Amino acid sequence: MAIVLEGRPVARAILEEARDDLTAYVTQTGRLPELGVVLAGADRSALAYLRAIRRTFRRVGIPLRELALPADVSEPTLRAAAAELNRDPAVSGVLVLQPLPHHLPPGIASELVDPAKDVDGITATSAGRLALGLPTMPPSTPAGGMAILEHYGLPIAGRTAVVVGRSPVVGLPMALLLLAANATVTICHRGTADLAAATRRADILVAAAGRPGLITPEMVKPGATVIDFGVNVVDDQLVGDVEPAVAEVAGALTPVPGGTGAVTNAILVRHTLRAAWSALRAPHPSSVSAPNR
Amino acid sequence: MAIVLEGRPVARAILEEARDDLTAYVTQTGRLPELGVVLAGADRSALAYLRAIRRTFRRVGIPLRELALPADVSEPTLRAAAAELNRDPAVSGVLVLQPLPHHLPPGIASELVDPAKDVDGITATSAGRLALGLPTMPPSTPAGGMAILEHYGLPIAGRTAVVVGRSPVVGLPMALLLLAANATVTICHRGTADLAAATRRADILVAAAGRPGLITPEMVKPGATVIDFGVNVVDDQLVGDVEPAVAEVAGALTPVPGGTGAVTNAILVRHTLRAAWSALRAPHPSSVSAPNR
Repeated sequence: MAIVLEGRPVARAILEEARDDLTAYVTQTGRLPELGVVLAGADRSALAYLRAIRRTFRRVGIPLRELALPADVSEPTLRAAAAELNRDPAVSGVLVLQPLPHHLPPGIASELVDPAKDVDGITATSAGRLALGLPTMPPSTPAGGMAILEHYGLPIAGRTAVVVGRSPVVGLPMALLLLAANATVTICHRGTADLAAATRRADILVAAAGRPGLITPEMVKPGATVIDFGVNVVDDQLVGDVEPAVAEVAGALTPVPGGTGAVTNAILVRHTLRAAWSALRAPHPSSVSAPNR
Repeated sequence: MAIVLEGRPVARAILEEARDDLTAYVTQTGRLPELGVVLAGADRSALAYLRAIRRTFRRVGIPLRELALPADVSEPTLRAAAAELNRDPAVSGVLVLQPLPHHLPPGIASELVDPAKDVDGITATSAGRLALGLPTMPPSTPAGGMAILEHYGLPIAGRTAVVVGRSPVVGLPMALLLLAANATVTICHRGTADLAAATRRADILVAAAGRPGLITPEMVKPGATVIDFGVNVVDDQLVGDVEPAVAEVAGALTPVPGGTGAVTNAILVRHTLRAAWSALRAPHPSSVSAPNR
């Protein structure tokens, strides 16, 4: 049976480190960092995520600055709200909860955040810095997956990694993070001709397709490390992209729930502190006109 | 024997299209676009590239605005020169010739160019837009490789593509372009455990490692399409990363010289026009303070 890669101990370790880091920050600056959060409307999953973020940030002692906007918010009003958080030097990081209401242009979230405050790595600048191998804050979900691999001492360099899914916030950045860690990386997707042939070669198999039960035991190399980013609700149950029976083949596997999802918020805390320290070193301009052109 | 994927006919077709596009632009605006070029010092390969660019742009009728700086140029002077080109509305695109002199910080080139004028796709914003699947101008070399595949009608979607090399201007963006075209993409590099096993699976094999003779016939699947981005000088001869004998196994192969290298400048012309049209639609701010933060 596979080792179960629980996310909670990883989150706990990150938050413990964050508490020390916060103490150092408060001692040096005399103030707390803050995370600015933009919520538009009342999407169920956005609200569930917000509650989880509130809990995690409270545990560490970093306040949130929440801007709740109505579901029919206009694009200019949304932009102005985000700009206010971008501008405010007391706000260290800015998070835009998704999904945004459907009347807003697709992809607008990535344009709202000042890259210097982009704790969830959604801007084009953050994505580009990740692709170019420059220091940056990657999206929190794949960063959490990497933290799990690191925490459990699972080797990456020289290994064959296969990522199923190429979304801009999970699959693709995970592939770039694994590449930066010197894995040989294959990116599969809906258009992949023979998915099982690819996944069976993986020493590290990453499921980020959002399709329940996509990865079956026959698709997994015996002893492989399997990271499941799937967040699917089936019959009111949260399930991943990986069939539970994969545990009989894999060497190590993140559970759902309790795996990658448990680490995401801890990464947001880490990134908020990182952005706070960066702003001290390089105070950023009072306004950013076009962060993502 | 493999079909020889000559670059010149591809470049010719792109430049022909560009001439029509230029006529339309001049008719509508009453002025010519311009490409701003920053040259620092007198590196041999940068100068050779500049001569080739001059020839190509002259053929189409787009003037260059060349800023030649001394080899010992200071970082502030270099930044000011680039900022001048970024600011000038008469300059549609900005190219920083590389390598820059060694006393300058590594990676500075990617910070000098306004993303809206980034005709060679070197800024973090351009790299991020490419990674996120947003419209952008990718680096000209891999864009030229894609133009060759397109020109010769070689299928990409659903195919297995293997890219050897992950440099930010060739290997990695080529992988992202192939992914956007729905190939299943594997990125190999120095740390790949069994390179031949990976390359032998490739329907489309891309060599972008900068190592002469790296790809031998045994490493190539019979009938594969091979794109060689190698630019190596061996015994005063320009050679690629692919052994000539690969032509006996591959289905199609770009020659060196005369393959991918012949298309790069034509892409720069296309991008300069594209940036000129974009600036008409969305006049950009008179100055860009921190395009790449």
